[in-house]
Amino acid sequence: MSEKCVVLLSGGLDSTTCLAVARDQGYECYTLSIDYGQRHVAELQASANIAGKLSHHPHQVVRVDLSAIGGSALTDDDIEVPEYSESNDAIPVTYVPARNTIFLSTALAYAEVVGADAIFIGVTAVDYSGYPDCRAEYIDAFAKMANLATRAGVEGQQMHIITPLIDLDKAEIIKLGHALGVDYGLTVSCYNANASGEACGHCDSCHYRQKGFSEAGLQDPTRYA
Amino acid sequence: MSEKCVVLLSGGLDSTTCLAVARDQGYECYTLSIDYGQRHVAELQASANIAGKLSHHPHQVVRVDLSAIGGSALTDDDIEVPEYSESNDAIPVTYVPARNTIFLSTALAYAEVVGADAIFIGVTAVDYSGYPDCRAEYIDAFAKMANLATRAGVEGQQMHIITPLIDLDKAEIIKLGHALGVDYGLTVSCYNANASGEACGHCDSCHYRQKGFSEAGLQDPTRYA
Repeated sequence: MSEKCVVLLSGGLDSTTCLAVARDQGYECYTLSIDYGQRHVAELQASANIAGKLSHHPHQVVRVDLSAIGGSALTDDDIEVPEYSESNDAIPVTYVPARNTIFLSTALAYAEVVGADAIFIGVTAVDYSGYPDCRAEYIDAFAKMANLATRAGVEGQQMHIITPLIDLDKAEIIKLGHALGVDYGLTVSCYNANASGEACGHCDSCHYRQKGFSEAGLQDPTRYA
Repeated sequence: MSEKCVVLLSGGLDSTTCLAVARDQGYECYTLSIDYGQRHVAELQASANIAGKLSHHPHQVVRVDLSAIGGSALTDDDIEVPEYSESNDAIPVTYVPARNTIFLSTALAYAEVVGADAIFIGVTAVDYSGYPDCRAEYIDAFAKMANLATRAGVEGQQMHIITPLIDLDKAEIIKLGHALGVDYGLTVSCYNANASGEACGHCDSCHYRQKGFSEAGLQDPTRYA
């Protein structure tokens, strides 16, 4: 019997690669997307399409209405998504307060319900654009907390937070996914993607994606508006 | 200038006392309730009423649809809320997977948005009914993780998770709140409360509440159906 895992799926390049890795490692995958009031709803459609091909179970979406509290260009219509800029090394306005903590917490609940003992999340500390909740020390602290938080933890079952991409740059992630047969044409990374999933080509996320395909020497299947 | 805090408010006895303590300690309070698809929606109405009297800012509600993943008698219509039973020392079916982790994660996001450096949560390890996420070691692990998760943490600001009730039993909590002028008639604890906020008198939560008022030697203002 294969082990079960929950895979956090955003519909982007990283989380889709992460799902392909989980499958390749022999896990029985439960995909989970969080509808957090993000601007880029095309992500959710992409997630459903990707899960339809790669998940072992019906795709699960949990709504967490972070737009009620705002604080990010991705959830607050009053904050503009900026274009990519070389000089930008502070934490950007696209940072969503505590996003990965909320994602992982929801995944923890779902893992407990389905009896999974692993959560896959496609964070990467390399191209992490200054997000604090993509670092290994953060992930380790979350895992420690998670094992004290749940019924499963109390009963001695360890919950593993698995981050197969954490030390990879975008080009390495793309090469890994390509080797696993990922169709990146299904994925949407752009912060400003339109309803059809077409990318703007100018935001941070588009910049890193374009650079990744270029460095990987692979054709970029992204549809630009 | 007073320090800001976020207070997690469920509309029950504990969280309302916790809010009164935060006010008494001089904090400027932002109250937050999580609408997680719970059976007892009367809680949310009670929270709004209590916040109207005790919060320094408009009450915030964030919807997190845990009913989509089920796994608890409080969010899944197919699982019955049991009556209180003496022999019940396992984790009960009213346990909501990772609930406090999701609550604290959402509070962490809200704290970062409003610039608060403390989160008050009314957990108690005494009458905790077997919930793993009410223990001090869990809260400590959450705080460590939180300080690695956020922009504020990266910039050196400590986030404090404050649990003023953690070592108190129900009678002590009631005496504390009574001394601070809390109107417990506004609070709803029952897992089966009806839409008017009337309690069933038979579930675990009603049992501990009745016992608490009795032991505190104070009149129980609870309205029973």
